[in-house]
Amino acid sequence: MAVQTVASSGHPTVDLGSAAALSCRECSHRVPLGPVFACEECFGPLEIAYDFSAYDTEELRHRIEAGPANVWRYAPLLPVPANVADRPHLNPGWTQLVKADNLARELGVTGGLYVKDDSGNPTHSFKDRVVAQALEAARAFGFTTLSCSSTGNLAGAVGAAAARAGLRSCVFIPHDLEQGKVVMAAVYGGELVGIEGNYDDVNRFCSELIGDPAGEGWGFVNVNLRPYYAEGSKTLAYEICEQLGWRLPDQIVVPIASGSQLTKIDKGLQELIKLGLVEDRPYKIFGAQAEGCSPVSTAFKAGHDVVRPQKPDTIAKSLAIGNPADGPYVLDIARRTGGAVEDVTDAEIVDAIKLLARTEGIFAETAGGVTVGVTRKLLKDGVLDPGKTTVVLNTGDGLKTLDAVAGTGLTATIRPTLDSFREAGLA
Amino acid sequence: MAVQTVASSGHPTVDLGSAAALSCRECSHRVPLGPVFACEECFGPLEIAYDFSAYDTEELRHRIEAGPANVWRYAPLLPVPANVADRPHLNPGWTQLVKADNLARELGVTGGLYVKDDSGNPTHSFKDRVVAQALEAARAFGFTTLSCSSTGNLAGAVGAAAARAGLRSCVFIPHDLEQGKVVMAAVYGGELVGIEGNYDDVNRFCSELIGDPAGEGWGFVNVNLRPYYAEGSKTLAYEICEQLGWRLPDQIVVPIASGSQLTKIDKGLQELIKLGLVEDRPYKIFGAQAEGCSPVSTAFKAGHDVVRPQKPDTIAKSLAIGNPADGPYVLDIARRTGGAVEDVTDAEIVDAIKLLARTEGIFAETAGGVTVGVTRKLLKDGVLDPGKTTVVLNTGDGLKTLDAVAGTGLTATIRPTLDSFREAGLA
Repeated sequence: MAVQTVASSGHPTVDLGSAAALSCRECSHRVPLGPVFACEECFGPLEIAYDFSAYDTEELRHRIEAGPANVWRYAPLLPVPANVADRPHLNPGWTQLVKADNLARELGVTGGLYVKDDSGNPTHSFKDRVVAQALEAARAFGFTTLSCSSTGNLAGAVGAAAARAGLRSCVFIPHDLEQGKVVMAAVYGGELVGIEGNYDDVNRFCSELIGDPAGEGWGFVNVNLRPYYAEGSKTLAYEICEQLGWRLPDQIVVPIASGSQLTKIDKGLQELIKLGLVEDRPYKIFGAQAEGCSPVSTAFKAGHDVVRPQKPDTIAKSLAIGNPADGPYVLDIARRTGGAVEDVTDAEIVDAIKLLARTEGIFAETAGGVTVGVTRKLLKDGVLDPGKTTVVLNTGDGLKTLDAVAGTGLTATIRPTLDSFREAGLA
Repeated sequence: MAVQTVASSGHPTVDLGSAAALSCRECSHRVPLGPVFACEECFGPLEIAYDFSAYDTEELRHRIEAGPANVWRYAPLLPVPANVADRPHLNPGWTQLVKADNLARELGVTGGLYVKDDSGNPTHSFKDRVVAQALEAARAFGFTTLSCSSTGNLAGAVGAAAARAGLRSCVFIPHDLEQGKVVMAAVYGGELVGIEGNYDDVNRFCSELIGDPAGEGWGFVNVNLRPYYAEGSKTLAYEICEQLGWRLPDQIVVPIASGSQLTKIDKGLQELIKLGLVEDRPYKIFGAQAEGCSPVSTAFKAGHDVVRPQKPDTIAKSLAIGNPADGPYVLDIARRTGGAVEDVTDAEIVDAIKLLARTEGIFAETAGGVTVGVTRKLLKDGVLDPGKTTVVLNTGDGLKTLDAVAGTGLTATIRPTLDSFREAGLA
C-alpha cells in the first residue's frame, strides 16, 4: 500500500517538485511526503513544507510569466512535478480578476475594487484548483481511483478531472440529493454512489473506507490527499497578486466553509513576500459566512479562540460546514492581519447575488453572494476601508444555485405590437 | 437617428479600427460603417470590409501574442477601436483548445483531435464573443440600449455584457419560456420582456421596433448590429490557429444555427492566410446539425444550392433555426473546402454529450453533442480523415441544458457500511 511504502522510507520516493515534506501545523513534526493527513505525534493537520531555496526572484518571476494561462504557471510553488503542464488535466485557474468599477461606485469604494471570478474554471468553481493538486498526488502515490464525499461542486470537479486524466472516479453523495445536482455529478461517467444517510454519514463512511483494505488504491481528495489538495487555494493568492501587477491587495474577502481556502490564501501571500515577488507590506484578510452557518464569525465576534460547531441552515450550501476544521486558524489570521469575520442573512445573500449581476454581469453562486454581502456590510460598518485596494472572491457559478434567485423574472409581458410596447412604458 | 447620420455621410465618422466599410456579400456594393445590415441595392447581407494593408506579418504576430488572454488580442483584426481592451467588457475568448486524446482513442483519430471549449466564456457560451463586438459598435453609434430577441444563451450574454458596460439592456423572449431560462436572463437586472407569442412573433416585433421611432437609440445585436456582431466568430478561427502554433487545422467541425458562425470561421481562416500568419494549405470545414432541424444538411446531401426551411423539433434548442440566413453560404464553403454537412438524432446528441464528458471531463450543451455526434458519424462514414488534425467546437455549457441528460443518475445506492459497499461490487 502506497501509504506504508512512502511513510516508512526516510526520504520521499516521489517527485512532487519543491514539496519537501509534510509538516504538522501544531507541533511542526515532519514526515516524508505520503498520503497521510494527520500528525502521528499530536493528530494535528499536516501541510506541505517546501524547499524554495534554489529560486532566484527575477528568474522565478520570468518563469511564471512565461508559463501557461492556468494554475501550472505556478508549478514551482506547488506540490507537483515540473512537467505537470504536459499531463492531462482540466487546467483550471488564471481566471479573471475583474475591476468592478460599477460595484465600487454602488458601495462607495474608491481605492479599487476587484472580483476574482472563479466561475470561469472548467467545472465553474474553485474546486478545480484543489482537485488538480490532489490528482497529481494521486498519480505520485500510485492511486488508481479518485474519490471524495460531496454534496455539490466537488463531485463535478472530481468526476471531470478523473475523466480527463483517465483515472477511475468514485464519488459518494447522500442518496436523496436534488436530481439536478446528481446529473451534474453523474454526467462524467464515474461511479456515483448514493449513501442512505446524511452528509455526516457519508463522511463517516469514507473515513472507514480509507482505513479498510477495500479502500486500497483510493485517493480521497479531501481526506488522505488533503494536504496536497488544500495547496490549490494558494493559486488564488498568486493570481490576484500577479494580476494586480505583482502587488498585494490591501484587503481581501474570502468565503469560509472549512476555512482551508482562507488559510492557504494567507500562506500563498506569505510565500510571495518571502520569495520577494511582492513588496512586504500589511494586508488584511476578512472571512465571510452565512448567518445560518456562522461558527467562525460567531467565535470571532465573541473573542473566542475555539469554534463551537453549529447545525447549518442556509441557502449557501457550498459553505455549510458546521464544524470547520480550519476555524481556529482562520481566527488567528483574521486577528493577526487586522481583518475580521462577518456573516450575512440568506436575504442579504440573494440581494448581493443580484447586486453583483446587475453591476458587473457576474452571476455568482450563493457563496459569491456571501462574500459580496459581507463586503457591503463591512464597508457600511466602517470595518473595511473604502480607500484601499479590495479583492472579493467569487468561488462558484450561479447556474449551480439557480433556486436562490428563482424569484427573478420578467419585467413586463406585452403583446407583439408597438402599441403594447409603448403602453408598458419601455420606450 | 444614428442610422441616417452615418449612412448619409460619405465617410465613416466612427473609430472601429481597421474596419473600413460595409460590403454586400451578394453584389459587393459598399457603404460607410453604420448600423445597417441589408444592402440598399440588392437587399443582400452586409459584412465588414477591412483595410489590413498597414500590417507587417511579424509585427502583427508579436502584437497579438503580447495581447491580453481574451478576444481583444485580435483587436487589430476586429471592428473595434485600438483601446478596446481598456473598456468595460466581459472579456470573453482565449478559451481552452483541449487536446482530446481519450476521445481520439475512442473515435480512432490518430492525427490529433482537439475540442475548442467555449463553455469557458463568461456566460458560458460563444455568444459572449459576438456580443462583445456588437457592444463596441453600439458605443460607436451612440446607442444607449443593447437589445436582442433570444430563447437562451444570447439573452444572458447581452444582459451580462450590458451590465458590465453600464448600458441599459432590453431582451425580448417568448413569454412562456421555462423558468430556469428566464432566471438566467433576468438575473443581470436589465429589462426582460415576455412577448405573447412564439419566437417568430418575437423576431417580427423586434424588426418592427427597429423601424419605429420607439426603437431609436436601440442596438439589436443580432439585427441592426449584426454585421459587427457576426465578426466575433472569427476569433474562434484565430484562437484555434494560434493555439495550434499558428497552424491551420486540417478539418474543423462547426455547429450550424443561422450558419453565421461557420461562414465567419472560414473568413477568419482566410484572413490569417492572407496576412501570412499561417501557411496557405487546404482545410476542410464540416457543418453539424440536429436531425430535427437540418435544413442545411438536407440541402447539402441533395446537392441543392438553396435551403428549404424546416419546422424545428430537436433538443438542440440553441441550433433550432429552421430558416438559416447563412445556409447557402455554408453550402458554398463546405463544397469549396471539400467538407460536408451532416446531422444526428436527439439520441445521438445525448450519447455524444455523455461520450465527451466521460472521455474529456467536458460537459457540453446540446450543441456540443451535435458537433461531437456528427464528428463520430463522419468518421464512421469515412468522410472525416482520422489521420488529420481535427478540431471540434463546443459552443455552450451543459449546465444550461441539464434536461438533455436528466436520465443520468446514481450508479449504486448503499447503506453507509463497508459490507454494503462490498456487496455492491465497488471495491
